[in-house]
Amino acid sequence: MKIESVDLFYLSMPEVLDIGDGSQDALLVRLRAGGLTGWGECEASPLVSIANWCCPMSHSACKNVRDAMLGRTLDSPADIAAIGRHVREIGLDIAQTDHTYSGIDVAMWDLLGKNLGQPVWKLLGFNKALPKTPYASQLFGDSPAETHDKAHRSREQGFRAVKFGWGPYGHGSVEADRDHVDAARRGLGSEGVLLIDAGTVWIDDVARARQNIKHLNDCNVLWLEEPFVGGALDAYHQLASVSGNVKLAGGEGAHNFYMAKQMIDHGGVGFIQIDAGRIGGISVAHRVAQYAQTRRVQYVNHTFTTQLMLSASLQPFAGDSSSWIAELPVEPKPLAADLTTAKLPLRDGLVTAPDSPGLGLDIN
Amino acid sequence: MKIESVDLFYLSMPEVLDIGDGSQDALLVRLRAGGLTGWGECEASPLVSIANWCCPMSHSACKNVRDAMLGRTLDSPADIAAIGRHVREIGLDIAQTDHTYSGIDVAMWDLLGKNLGQPVWKLLGFNKALPKTPYASQLFGDSPAETHDKAHRSREQGFRAVKFGWGPYGHGSVEADRDHVDAARRGLGSEGVLLIDAGTVWIDDVARARQNIKHLNDCNVLWLEEPFVGGALDAYHQLASVSGNVKLAGGEGAHNFYMAKQMIDHGGVGFIQIDAGRIGGISVAHRVAQYAQTRRVQYVNHTFTTQLMLSASLQPFAGDSSSWIAELPVEPKPLAADLTTAKLPLRDGLVTAPDSPGLGLDIN
Repeated sequence: MKIESVDLFYLSMPEVLDIGDGSQDALLVRLRAGGLTGWGECEASPLVSIANWCCPMSHSACKNVRDAMLGRTLDSPADIAAIGRHVREIGLDIAQTDHTYSGIDVAMWDLLGKNLGQPVWKLLGFNKALPKTPYASQLFGDSPAETHDKAHRSREQGFRAVKFGWGPYGHGSVEADRDHVDAARRGLGSEGVLLIDAGTVWIDDVARARQNIKHLNDCNVLWLEEPFVGGALDAYHQLASVSGNVKLAGGEGAHNFYMAKQMIDHGGVGFIQIDAGRIGGISVAHRVAQYAQTRRVQYVNHTFTTQLMLSASLQPFAGDSSSWIAELPVEPKPLAADLTTAKLPLRDGLVTAPDSPGLGLDIN
Repeated sequence: MKIESVDLFYLSMPEVLDIGDGSQDALLVRLRAGGLTGWGECEASPLVSIANWCCPMSHSACKNVRDAMLGRTLDSPADIAAIGRHVREIGLDIAQTDHTYSGIDVAMWDLLGKNLGQPVWKLLGFNKALPKTPYASQLFGDSPAETHDKAHRSREQGFRAVKFGWGPYGHGSVEADRDHVDAARRGLGSEGVLLIDAGTVWIDDVARARQNIKHLNDCNVLWLEEPFVGGALDAYHQLASVSGNVKLAGGEGAHNFYMAKQMIDHGGVGFIQIDAGRIGGISVAHRVAQYAQTRRVQYVNHTFTTQLMLSASLQPFAGDSSSWIAELPVEPKPLAADLTTAKLPLRDGLVTAPDSPGLGLDIN
């Protein structure tokens, strides 16, 4: 097949709120070849990625993504890999390139799967898509009481794992943070898996982050996510060495394979969280998942948008039995919730990458 | 002073050629406060950065740069630092943010220097701007004979150091690469400082890069620049351990402090090359220069555009006597050459950051 067209669609809620909710807008990618249509999505900042998609060349290593795509052959995973190498080479000096290319890589896998009648995970070499324990990913409440109620509601909905993040956490006192985590644990019950996301609030301040380690251990939290910005590997490493039973998680900001690898090699994380809509698509995410396995670090998807992106995000570790937990956005805005005609079903409370060809979802 | 306006101007040559020459377009930043005007420049891909400058918010950590700027107080270096922290926080999830913000940081330093009647390097804490040995930075010729002639011409122009990069290097055989480096050395003479820039051509292929080490040592090359993409720290480290007298150089792709720090800590480079128009401006570049000094790694500016950017790039290490070499673009397109009313003078073949307030140059 020859790639005939690639179109980017910028969608947004009528009002975008100033909260840590990535489901308020979307950059959807439609790719056509061989009479088929593949769909993908780029995470966040649609206009920046659209500019990167079509901007005039600045010089030979500073070209847009579009010109690398049209007319290319797309018949195999090797073709996708070759296109990816080419895009990274000609877009080397534009920081946004991997971010923008992510949605296009996802759309190519979807289309290739449809053409070959195979789910993407099969094309990646897995024999079977294994059920993952989804965690309900949501924002902290404004008060501990609200956080408690949200945790309780998630438990009633059948979630075995819940993550709270952003909101007030880390912006006030250690005691205020503790009260929120306490409330979450009480709302969830003692059996549930509790995850806390600090949203990079401490930048690289290990001393401040360390003050929260006691209550995180007391509340039996599985991971503390993004205490620091992604590049602050020394800070991650130092905190990991004193975090007790609480593992560190991070990596969503990685926008190429190397950044994720460095977080594994030098940051001491127990969980590497990859956004396939930002790191360069399913191809790069899969490479990270394979590397993480060799280092005994668990791979987790980072997904805060649509079901299309959820399916794309599950593919890279669909058949990896050692990585058992998956992020599931549970408070998506209608834009994200309604973008596909169906949702990935929860069976016995577990989520699995679809068996149908490509990403297994239709666009609404 | 309150920041009253920030305007971005996209300038381009009538025709942009498909060569590794970053002087073919420019994104100029004009910042006004207190009746004064400061100027800055963002390196490369103007439209992507303009989109990042003004795009609608996707969520609370995905906002444009513009909204962080207007109305802010600008009276001291501490004010610039506070604005930088804020921009990085609200633009966390847009890969382009540091790149875009670079030109604005540069313009703030220029304006602050003008307001305080001080050159920027003085505001950074240096007592004196020291002369640096400029290297003539240019592309390889299409043939070894052409490379020879370019090297010879640079020597006649009084340059003690010359760098050749991109073009055919690394794209053909080891022998072809050797012939180019040989020709450059002959053209330059045995006394001149010769630098070679591989332009990331080997991505992360240590075995291929290693084949060139012999001729680089034979030709007494001071550094091999960017054999690999910036993230491939293991590859850098492995090659550095077998590169003999040839040091590795890299870092121009770093778009925050941490990426540069990791290249120093884990990549084994002898020279860290920072583009102040990409890494987050003079502020972040200065932080890298200070860190490099503690690790006995030499700091070098990466500059391939205008004299304005050259002045900005010299400020972060202006008073550092251990970092003695500076990149000087010698083949700029008229757009870049004519952007300022004057050039930084070469005295005894050396270049020095200006003593006049701010960046010491006027826009044409």
